[in-house]
Amino acid sequence: MKKYITISFLLFVLSVNAQTVQSPSKQITLKFALSDGKPTYEVSYKNKSVILKSYLGIKLKGARDLDDKFRIDSIRQVTVNETWQPVLGEQSNIKNNYNQLTVALYQALADRKMNIIFRVFDEGVAFRYEFPKQPNLNYFIVSDEVSEFNLTSDHKTFWLPGDFDSQEYAYTESKLSEVNTDNVDKNNGINLKSIAGKYVVQSPLMMKSADGLYINIFEAAVVNYPIMHLDLVPNEYKLTSRLVPNAIGDKAYLQTPCVSPWRTVMVSDDARDIVSSKMILNLNDPSKIEDTSWIKSMKYVGIWWEMHVGKSTWDFAGSQNAQNAADGKLIPSGKHGATTENTKHYIDFAAKNGFDGVLVEGWNVGWEDWFGNWKENVFDFTTPYPDFDLKAVSDYAKSKGVKMIMHHETSGSVANYERHLDRAMDLMKKYGYPAVKSGYVGRIIPRGEFHDGQTMVNHFNYVAQRMAENKLMVNSHESSRPTGYSRTYPNYIAAEAARGNEFNAWSNGNPPMHETILPFTRLLGGPMDYTPGIFEIKMSFYDKTKTAQVHTTLAKQLALYVTMYSPLQMAADLPENYERYADAFQFIKDVAVDWQDSKYLEAEPGDYLTVARKDKKSENWFLGAITDENARATELKLDFLSPNKKYKATIYQDGVDADWEKNPKSYVIKTIQVTSKSKIKLSLAKGGGTAISFVPIN
Amino acid sequence: MKKYITISFLLFVLSVNAQTVQSPSKQITLKFALSDGKPTYEVSYKNKSVILKSYLGIKLKGARDLDDKFRIDSIRQVTVNETWQPVLGEQSNIKNNYNQLTVALYQALADRKMNIIFRVFDEGVAFRYEFPKQPNLNYFIVSDEVSEFNLTSDHKTFWLPGDFDSQEYAYTESKLSEVNTDNVDKNNGINLKSIAGKYVVQSPLMMKSADGLYINIFEAAVVNYPIMHLDLVPNEYKLTSRLVPNAIGDKAYLQTPCVSPWRTVMVSDDARDIVSSKMILNLNDPSKIEDTSWIKSMKYVGIWWEMHVGKSTWDFAGSQNAQNAADGKLIPSGKHGATTENTKHYIDFAAKNGFDGVLVEGWNVGWEDWFGNWKENVFDFTTPYPDFDLKAVSDYAKSKGVKMIMHHETSGSVANYERHLDRAMDLMKKYGYPAVKSGYVGRIIPRGEFHDGQTMVNHFNYVAQRMAENKLMVNSHESSRPTGYSRTYPNYIAAEAARGNEFNAWSNGNPPMHETILPFTRLLGGPMDYTPGIFEIKMSFYDKTKTAQVHTTLAKQLALYVTMYSPLQMAADLPENYERYADAFQFIKDVAVDWQDSKYLEAEPGDYLTVARKDKKSENWFLGAITDENARATELKLDFLSPNKKYKATIYQDGVDADWEKNPKSYVIKTIQVTSKSKIKLSLAKGGGTAISFVPIN
Repeated sequence: MKKYITISFLLFVLSVNAQTVQSPSKQITLKFALSDGKPTYEVSYKNKSVILKSYLGIKLKGARDLDDKFRIDSIRQVTVNETWQPVLGEQSNIKNNYNQLTVALYQALADRKMNIIFRVFDEGVAFRYEFPKQPNLNYFIVSDEVSEFNLTSDHKTFWLPGDFDSQEYAYTESKLSEVNTDNVDKNNGINLKSIAGKYVVQSPLMMKSADGLYINIFEAAVVNYPIMHLDLVPNEYKLTSRLVPNAIGDKAYLQTPCVSPWRTVMVSDDARDIVSSKMILNLNDPSKIEDTSWIKSMKYVGIWWEMHVGKSTWDFAGSQNAQNAADGKLIPSGKHGATTENTKHYIDFAAKNGFDGVLVEGWNVGWEDWFGNWKENVFDFTTPYPDFDLKAVSDYAKSKGVKMIMHHETSGSVANYERHLDRAMDLMKKYGYPAVKSGYVGRIIPRGEFHDGQTMVNHFNYVAQRMAENKLMVNSHESSRPTGYSRTYPNYIAAEAARGNEFNAWSNGNPPMHETILPFTRLLGGPMDYTPGIFEIKMSFYDKTKTAQVHTTLAKQLALYVTMYSPLQMAADLPENYERYADAFQFIKDVAVDWQDSKYLEAEPGDYLTVARKDKKSENWFLGAITDENARATELKLDFLSPNKKYKATIYQDGVDADWEKNPKSYVIKTIQVTSKSKIKLSLAKGGGTAISFVPIN
Repeated sequence: MKKYITISFLLFVLSVNAQTVQSPSKQITLKFALSDGKPTYEVSYKNKSVILKSYLGIKLKGARDLDDKFRIDSIRQVTVNETWQPVLGEQSNIKNNYNQLTVALYQALADRKMNIIFRVFDEGVAFRYEFPKQPNLNYFIVSDEVSEFNLTSDHKTFWLPGDFDSQEYAYTESKLSEVNTDNVDKNNGINLKSIAGKYVVQSPLMMKSADGLYINIFEAAVVNYPIMHLDLVPNEYKLTSRLVPNAIGDKAYLQTPCVSPWRTVMVSDDARDIVSSKMILNLNDPSKIEDTSWIKSMKYVGIWWEMHVGKSTWDFAGSQNAQNAADGKLIPSGKHGATTENTKHYIDFAAKNGFDGVLVEGWNVGWEDWFGNWKENVFDFTTPYPDFDLKAVSDYAKSKGVKMIMHHETSGSVANYERHLDRAMDLMKKYGYPAVKSGYVGRIIPRGEFHDGQTMVNHFNYVAQRMAENKLMVNSHESSRPTGYSRTYPNYIAAEAARGNEFNAWSNGNPPMHETILPFTRLLGGPMDYTPGIFEIKMSFYDKTKTAQVHTTLAKQLALYVTMYSPLQMAADLPENYERYADAFQFIKDVAVDWQDSKYLEAEPGDYLTVARKDKKSENWFLGAITDENARATELKLDFLSPNKKYKATIYQDGVDADWEKNPKSYVIKTIQVTSKSKIKLSLAKGGGTAISFVPIN
């Protein structure tokens, strides 16, 4: 954090019951008011109402609620304008500029204090509850939070069912009044579903009003608190916070002094303001890691997609086959993917093509009986299968200058994982694994807990913190979706926590619009390990009876490396597939994953996204453009390029006959010379995309 | 295990629906029968009915119950007669002799198998459910167990309320028909109570019939299963298993092949057969620890009682005072017990008087805010207070030949403890602590779990196992009560898990009969760290306003070292108190804690107990005799002594004017010469006792 300008002034407004605060641009206005002793707020954008009068409050278990009978004790306003540098990110410098209003409330009948803090940025507002240290509120249990988001009309929305255990759904695009989780196709490859009700949706919730406002409701800095879903009253367009309960129905156990997460409402008439916003990151605490030199971006390959397509297996002896072992000795099925030999093959491929890392899943014993039975002691995270020689593999990787990526599948048995975490990290350090991909497939143990409850939020954050103490990086899958905590623990390098590319391998898959929505929702909270780069689009390639396929063209798979920001990116397909399409593969080899700057050129949620990014370590730029199920033609100005440079632009685009469904592998690569004054025309196929690398010539 | 004789024969009795099996002595008869497809059993002793026809069965969640529609597939009988050697124990050799009946049941409508295994010993019967590996039963959830104990009449019983979180009650002596937990005094110093109902009692449940039968209902080998309490139908004298639920009401998560714990019914017309029984240990698996050379008995002193009596504190800065720290820096209150200096004083005292170890509680940060608020992250188990120098203390102890005993108070936050366990053990090994006393005061986290549920049973066993892997011994307090697992993990050297001596320091205390019952109940499951040896009986010694007191005479405190078997025994009082009563203290210095043999000479639950034990390492014998609130005179034959030896007997007895309440510190020490042909008369005061050491002269 390099610059810090604050102006603060105190208003003693004991006789005043309302106060407004504006964004630095003055285009957003937030009004706080006490209405009959109850806290309320309203938000408008360019004088258009965005959030109508909405109530705020916290309900407590076994104590009087903190939602009414308040008076205002003081109101304080502060302006912050600073710039900070993320360790890894979409840009080298992030501006954090907002006006803050702190409303100190006093509830006389219980002699208790609660503050509500509002921050108004140029792209939206945020608020949180603050519980100061005080005699009559020390330990307390949140039984509910009543934060309302009272919308103005029947907006179009991209929603996921409010599921306490999974975000791995495809988005439904509908009006608010048409939301009904009963209508979501449940035959979608998600094994564990805990949908909270007909009218419960997930946040981040992306909306668009009839008059062209883009509105996004989300949260930031979820620490020691459950995830917030949203209860909808469909015909009133009203959303209310729905906190995820624990095993006995409580929401959060807190002790003063403490704060709730931030609740955010972003709004703009330009969708690019939402998708490029750093508000969620800004609302998180700065890095708690002092020395971040060991935190590094990674492009990686791995023994993973070959299991998804059925070429090999995670298990050594056959799935669900542990009980068939004679004398407890597993009999190899011959299909095990994570063998020493196969791993060396991937290491060779990574070294040859300049990848940083190799992930190996299925290396450790337990996969014969790991899934779907709420089993507690599945994996020990330290015992390799007999055909996986940890030492040989890590020595070989080291000799080739490649890093190994550890894999910890917990199968949801978090109690078991926490018991083994220290030993698991010791093993990583012993063999020089700098990062781990963790997985949480299955019902949580401690039993009764959900993936999105306070217990699990704390677990994910705990793992990030412990890994940081050991200088290890984490990439969690099936975790709760991030809310910007990677600012605070930048070793929490990526997460899945949404419907990833893998669903295309064996389910009804991800519809072509999927990747145009994620940057407006999931990615606001932090990088996603989406695992792009699938070249063999149709699973019939492996097995003629299979109908599953990736719902994009091959060229769009390349564009995703730019549109889906992550400092950890997988080249997910098999080495032999890349070797057959070496010219297209070149883009994956070239593309950067850590950036000096990012320019969102075009954006419309559910339709298209075009973004250009500048490599942090060079003068190279990369551009990704994607579209949904509709073909798209567009013309782009290249004025983001440095003015006095010539660039060789290598354009990876859909072939003229390309179509995600009928002809996905049709692509064309061409090279042109451009400058910052050039314009280029792009032509994206149905479900298609374009990827471009710009390399300075002079 | 040195001798093993088995005779086995198979009975194919597909047309038979009943089968009996007798104890080796033939005095106990167990009859199994299928009654309309439902399993039942009956027990008689010397032709008197003990258990009337009682049903057996398991109820499942989401699957058909395993309690009816059975047919018998086969019945198999085996006789076992073996002798094994415990690492530490009441005797060097333990005989394990029983007749076993295995009834293989088949439930045709669900195509499932379940076996019930009965073992009949000379002092009682045991049965367990066995679930073989089978196609139609793999993972399953026990929603209830219906094991009935249908008693014959309105026996006298010594009962504790069926509390899922605590056994730290005084016993109520009443008829079965008079059991009602509402009538138990709740102002008894127990902070966390989770009593399951009016007519729920704990096991072990000790009873006596009007015609002189001693009957005890308990369980053995509780592994991966919750603790069993007992539901009573008071007027029918019928008890049914009441398993402790988890956070969402389930009882046990199991996977075939597996077994339930053993349910036990001991019976004899001689109370000594119950109190000396090794049936519970015999029903547990042999030691899983190969090299047990590092498992050693210990007599210890510690910084502990001085906190109970108010001389010093666990905390460094004042109880519940953490939030008052300025800048997070704790300000010492000056009353902290666990200082380096004080610890050295105890080490000196231990070295001078031949004790093996020194326990220090309150050595680690966290005690300022540790209790009663369901706080998750209380202790880290590795950070000492600034006035406790771990290295200096352990170096000093080593130089004096004394071992330090670690202390881990979890405050019930087991999730937090499990996260830190590996680091905590690393610290113990670094500083050479061979053993830990652990504590579980407070509501359990994971929230919703009880101390007695499957989750916690697994935790206690997990800690024993992990400590064993690190060659460390455990003494757990506020754990679930043991059921003989110390045979399997002999490093689980002791536990509290009952109302210990500490309650005498600050509550209504333990009535004089308390210690005459524990050997018939709690101690059947394993050694108890009762912490005897309090010489300053009345707390008014420390503070004139205090009325609490130990409910025994001083002499009885000495006798407890013999009557309350444990290989880990504390001399609980303060060094300065022992120095003032050096002659009486001599017995504590002399008494052994690991035994070649034990002879229970007299026993009546709730009234008195006399036991003689022979030191494992010498020819010395020690005798302890205790009584309840009534004075008692008795004459003992010393025929347990070796026939050809003369012994110097040092007798520590109540003074003629001694009385636990009015004059507890009156004692007399005399020395006489005896042989195995001698008789001695004992005279025990109200709440009194006698301790004797016998040392061979020739």
